Amino acid sequence: MGKYIYGVDVGGTSIKMGLFNYEGSLLDSFQIPTNKEDNGNYVLFDVTKALNTHMEEKNINKDEIKGVGIGVPGPVSEGIVYGCVNLGWGTVNVKAELEKLLRLPVFVSNDANVAGLGELWKGGGAGYKNVIFITLGTGVGGAVIVDDKIVDGFVGAGGEIGHSPTITDGFKCNCGKTGCLETVASATGVVNIAKKLLQETNIPSTLRSVDALSARVIFDEAKTNDPLASEVVEIFGKNLGFVCAMIGVVTNPQAFVFGGGVSQAGDIIIDVVKKYFKQYAFPRIAETTEFKLATLGNDAGIYGAAYLAKENN
Amino acid sequence: MGKYIYGVDVGGTSIKMGLFNYEGSLLDSFQIPTNKEDNGNYVLFDVTKALNTHMEEKNINKDEIKGVGIGVPGPVSEGIVYGCVNLGWGTVNVKAELEKLLRLPVFVSNDANVAGLGELWKGGGAGYKNVIFITLGTGVGGAVIVDDKIVDGFVGAGGEIGHSPTITDGFKCNCGKTGCLETVASATGVVNIAKKLLQETNIPSTLRSVDALSARVIFDEAKTNDPLASEVVEIFGKNLGFVCAMIGVVTNPQAFVFGGGVSQAGDIIIDVVKKYFKQYAFPRIAETTEFKLATLGNDAGIYGAAYLAKENN
Repeated sequence: MGKYIYGVDVGGTSIKMGLFNYEGSLLDSFQIPTNKEDNGNYVLFDVTKALNTHMEEKNINKDEIKGVGIGVPGPVSEGIVYGCVNLGWGTVNVKAELEKLLRLPVFVSNDANVAGLGELWKGGGAGYKNVIFITLGTGVGGAVIVDDKIVDGFVGAGGEIGHSPTITDGFKCNCGKTGCLETVASATGVVNIAKKLLQETNIPSTLRSVDALSARVIFDEAKTNDPLASEVVEIFGKNLGFVCAMIGVVTNPQAFVFGGGVSQAGDIIIDVVKKYFKQYAFPRIAETTEFKLATLGNDAGIYGAAYLAKENN
Repeated sequence: MGKYIYGVDVGGTSIKMGLFNYEGSLLDSFQIPTNKEDNGNYVLFDVTKALNTHMEEKNINKDEIKGVGIGVPGPVSEGIVYGCVNLGWGTVNVKAELEKLLRLPVFVSNDANVAGLGELWKGGGAGYKNVIFITLGTGVGGAVIVDDKIVDGFVGAGGEIGHSPTITDGFKCNCGKTGCLETVASATGVVNIAKKLLQETNIPSTLRSVDALSARVIFDEAKTNDPLASEVVEIFGKNLGFVCAMIGVVTNPQAFVFGGGVSQAGDIIIDVVKKYFKQYAFPRIAETTEFKLATLGNDAGIYGAAYLAKENN
C-alpha cells in the first residue's frame, strides 16, 4: 500500500500538481503550462510525464502512491468529462486514459468541485456542512455542498454556477450560450466589462492608459476609487450577488466561499457581492448567510483532488 | 400504537386534511377555509377542532392515530415556522402549539416541501432521486430533493424558490422585496401581469370584458390564442424558465415537477417553461432535464404531510 497521494488541478492556463501524505500535508507542489494545441490532446500525456519525472526525482516508487486525484474544468460523471470548453476537449474518459498512461488508480471530478473539497478539508469551508464554493478564475466554477457532500447532479453539472443565466446582457460564452455568469464574473469577464465600458462610455479612468488589462489591475484601480474600475466592480458584484441570492433559495447554504484568482482581490469582492445579495435575497436568508474568502488560494484544487483520491481509494 | 395518520396542508385560502393508513391509501379527505383574521391566530385551533370532529364522526380513538403531519406556508426548522406571510403569522412554534391542542405527535414542514414529499411518495416524482418540485399556487413554493432527501437549508429556507430574484421587473412581494418569482408565477402573479398589460397596452383581449380575472381564465384564454393572455403566459414562462435554468446549474436535477392550482392548466405550462429553459440553460442541462406535471393535484400536500408523520414517528 502506498503512503502518498498526488492531487492534480487542470486549469485553462496551467496544471498544478501536489504530493500529499494521508494526513493532508502538502509535501511538494509544482506546475506546468496547459498545452491547448490539437484540442488539448497533450494534456493527459503532459500530466503523466510530469508525475513520472517527479517520482523519479524524489525517488518515489509507484507502489508508494495510493492514487492520483484530478480536477478538470468540465462536468464529470463516473470518471468521464463531458466537454472542457477551456481545454478544447470533447467527451474524454479521463479515468481510463490516465490510468492507462500512469498505471495508478485515478479519481476524477470537476475542478471547482475539487477546489470545494479542498477548502472543506483544510481551508475556508472547514466546519460548514451546507456551503457553496465559487471559483472565480479563468472561468467561474462552483461546488455545491449539502450535508458535507458534493452535489454532482444528474449529468454531473451540479455546481456549474458559471453557466447560470444572470441579469446584465453579458457576452458570448464558450458553452455556446450568451450571458452566462462566467462572462461577467470570471477574470476574463471582468476584463470584458472593462473593455466594453472603455469603448462605450466616457467615464474617466487610469485604465484608459493601461496596455494589458487584467482583472487584477481593474480591482487594484477600483480600490483607489477609479470611477470606471469601480463601475466594473459594481457590475461584477451585481451579477454575482444576484446569482448567490437565487442559490440562497435553492439549498439555503450557511456560507458562500469565494476562491480562484479573482478572489485574491480580497474584501472588495465580499463587500460588493454582499451589497447586491442583500438587495436580491429573501430577507431571512439575507440576514443569516455568511460570505468568506477561500484560504488555500490556488492550492485548493490540488488539496481537493488529493482528498478525492484518499476518500475513494 | 395507532394505525392511522392525518396529513394537514395549510394554504392561504383553505386547509386540507386527509386520513391515511400506513400504506399511503387516502381513506378520507376534507377541508375548511383558512381564517386569516387576527393574523391567522385561529388557524391551529380550527385544525384541532376539525380533526377532533372528524375522529368523533369516524369513531376513531386518539390512540389509533400514529401522528399528524402538517405543511405550513413558510420556512420551517425543527417544528418552528419563521413567518408565514400568507397567513399573517410571525414566528410560530407549530409543533409545540398543535401538540398541546391536539395531544398527538405533530410533525411540521414547509408546505411546498410536504407537497414534494407527497409527489415523491405516491405521485409524479416517484422514481426520481434528484428532483425539484415547484408548487404554483396562491404563492410559489418549492422542494429541492437531492438523493431522495429534502434539502431544508441552514435556516429552513431551502426550496423557497418563490422568493428567487428573476428577470422581469415583477411586483411588490409579501416578503418585503420586489420582483420575487412568486410575484409573476403564482396564481396571483399571473393575474398581476394580466392587469398590468390590460392597463398599459392596447393588446386586444377577451380578458378586457372579464370581471373576475383568475389564473384559470387567463390560461384558458391563452389556449384559444387570445393575444394578451398569450403574452401573460410568455412572461410567466420566461421567468419560470429562467429560474429553472439557474436551479439547473445548482443541483442539476433530473426533473422539474410542477404542482399547485396553476399547474392544472396542464401542458401549456410545461411547453412555455421548456421553451425558455432551453434558451437560458447550460446546453448539456437543457438537453437532459425533464419537465413533468404533478399527479396528486391538490392532495400532494396531505400525502406528503402524512408521509412526514409516518417517516419521523
